[in-house]
Amino acid sequence: MNEAGCIFCKIIKREIPSKIVFENDLNLAFLDISPISKGHTIVIPKKHYSTLEDIPEDELAETIKVVKKISINIHKSLEIDGYNILQNNFAAAGQVVKHFHMHIIPRSYDDDKFRLEIPKNQASDEELNEIYGQLKF
Amino acid sequence: MNEAGCIFCKIIKREIPSKIVFENDLNLAFLDISPISKGHTIVIPKKHYSTLEDIPEDELAETIKVVKKISINIHKSLEIDGYNILQNNFAAAGQVVKHFHMHIIPRSYDDDKFRLEIPKNQASDEELNEIYGQLKF
Repeated sequence: MNEAGCIFCKIIKREIPSKIVFENDLNLAFLDISPISKGHTIVIPKKHYSTLEDIPEDELAETIKVVKKISINIHKSLEIDGYNILQNNFAAAGQVVKHFHMHIIPRSYDDDKFRLEIPKNQASDEELNEIYGQLKF
Repeated sequence: MNEAGCIFCKIIKREIPSKIVFENDLNLAFLDISPISKGHTIVIPKKHYSTLEDIPEDELAETIKVVKKISINIHKSLEIDGYNILQNNFAAAGQVVKHFHMHIIPRSYDDDKFRLEIPKNQASDEELNEIYGQLKF
């Protein structure tokens, strides 16, 4: 269930050292070695899945439960004011490692270098209706 | 289970109109009226929880399953190259509406205005060890 050459699979197999803060049967949480902020943690399933589209529902459910558990611990243990959960799918969205993973990014009012530049635009009703027609179940 | 004054609770109760692309017993997905990109969708539990720390594990699991389902549909239906899942907790992390929600943000190589400015820094072993000591289970 590991993929040759996958850096996260190597972390799971301890072929690459990392600071593993939590582990259970299905998931692993470790510190990002290039942290966006202090305490930046990555949660991964131990089985190799590329994106959100590949991880089975039940295993995804277990991963998000671990994300919640770790997030609460980060919030309690570090002096932070909040945190973002970020999960990128495909290169266009900034996914670098092709092993499904969720980032926990601690945020604080002081010394916050993280910037989410979001050009929000009020959508017209026509625009929303067009998308609505394409997406409605 | 609704909270007075909560804009998302009002969307659930149809007191505020919105483009609801999916709904089941526990969750609702609707188009963001100030989209970061075309197809920007928000998934929420119908019960009011403030942050990731408040929503019970089992309900969180159901919400992420809906996020997966909607994401696959967005990827199939719109001409996009990827997407981010973003979930903000507390004001310091950019949370505006205090009703737990997950963003699905479509991304494309063309015409992508979304910028995640991330000053990544290689952490020293001392820095990682300090955090590791605080976070390890």
